[in-house]
Amino acid sequence: MPEPEITVLEALHSTPARRYLSTEPIGDDIIRKLLDAAIRGPNGGNTQRWAWIVLRDPEVKARIAEFYREGWETHYGIYREHMLAQPESGDGFGPANFRAGDHLAAHLEEAPVWIFPVLLGPAKSTNPRLGASIYGAVQQLMLAARAYGIGSTLTTLYTGHEAETRELLGLPEDALTMGLVPLGYPNRGRWAEPKRRPLDEVVFFDRYTAE
Amino acid sequence: MPEPEITVLEALHSTPARRYLSTEPIGDDIIRKLLDAAIRGPNGGNTQRWAWIVLRDPEVKARIAEFYREGWETHYGIYREHMLAQPESGDGFGPANFRAGDHLAAHLEEAPVWIFPVLLGPAKSTNPRLGASIYGAVQQLMLAARAYGIGSTLTTLYTGHEAETRELLGLPEDALTMGLVPLGYPNRGRWAEPKRRPLDEVVFFDRYTAE
Repeated sequence: MPEPEITVLEALHSTPARRYLSTEPIGDDIIRKLLDAAIRGPNGGNTQRWAWIVLRDPEVKARIAEFYREGWETHYGIYREHMLAQPESGDGFGPANFRAGDHLAAHLEEAPVWIFPVLLGPAKSTNPRLGASIYGAVQQLMLAARAYGIGSTLTTLYTGHEAETRELLGLPEDALTMGLVPLGYPNRGRWAEPKRRPLDEVVFFDRYTAE
Repeated sequence: MPEPEITVLEALHSTPARRYLSTEPIGDDIIRKLLDAAIRGPNGGNTQRWAWIVLRDPEVKARIAEFYREGWETHYGIYREHMLAQPESGDGFGPANFRAGDHLAAHLEEAPVWIFPVLLGPAKSTNPRLGASIYGAVQQLMLAARAYGIGSTLTTLYTGHEAETRELLGLPEDALTMGLVPLGYPNRGRWAEPKRRPLDEVVFFDRYTAE
């Protein structure tokens, strides 16, 4: 398996959320490469109080996909009519994004491999900066996946059923799942640059100035 | 300025925390490139309720560096004697890491550019997964910096003084600083692969199994 040659700057600019994922299997050797890149990411004090669950079990995926669909409907689905009637968005969340989200919700369990990044210990944490010890590593996972042509997205929409998810994954009671990253070779869309507001609207030198 | 050619996999494996940073200035053109890479990172629903503060003001840096030193002493400094007496660590936080942390605490304001990733709105959030909407983008910043030979580390040790920091940066009351990333050309150390526990100790297929 040759090493992908994509440069880091190219990858940083061409890793959008991919929500149309095929059922094509992903080899164990690639999964290991993605995770080996992930764990090189930062975590506080290098304590590495984390676990990375690779989920392929179809029954467990089907269960958690139901939790996900419930979250999707609660947070997005209820706005379906309104969202689909909006003009397409240049730098926000428009109808195309909504349809992709709807597709992912309907087909989530078809993604061949799911990764759950988990923190061990902080199940009851109320620290909004807790994720500093894992989401950078998750981003490394997603960038490594992109290098191999594998699409992903980071979502937390299943977390309305955290306790049940924890149990399905065999996690201890003090563990907190930090998200779900479905992985798959995309079957629609492209490695487009993520659409964002202009840099000058979000970057401030020395002091923030109200918009 | 030529585009760096480092591949994404190489960057993912060679971006350790860099804590020995020189005072050499970083050009505005490079700062903009780093931030343009950062904002391509993920955020929930592409709402981009974030701000990126580029801090170079020496007086403000000096003030926040005091907050930082207080946090460093509280969380790490009190273990100085014990930490420095430990054997060097293969995959954890050993004396060399401690000395680097001590150095950064003593010299933080010398790093020419600091970046504060900020979320607008959630100042009172108790959601431990809040960072899903910014830490991936922070990792993109750090990887882009690495491509240009600029070292960084993500820290939250100043956050014992969040309200004062917010005020010094001119942020609204509902904003939450999510961390501080000092940037600088390293003057010691190298782009070594971050030392981590073996993959098989932290990766689990389908179900977690207790250690």
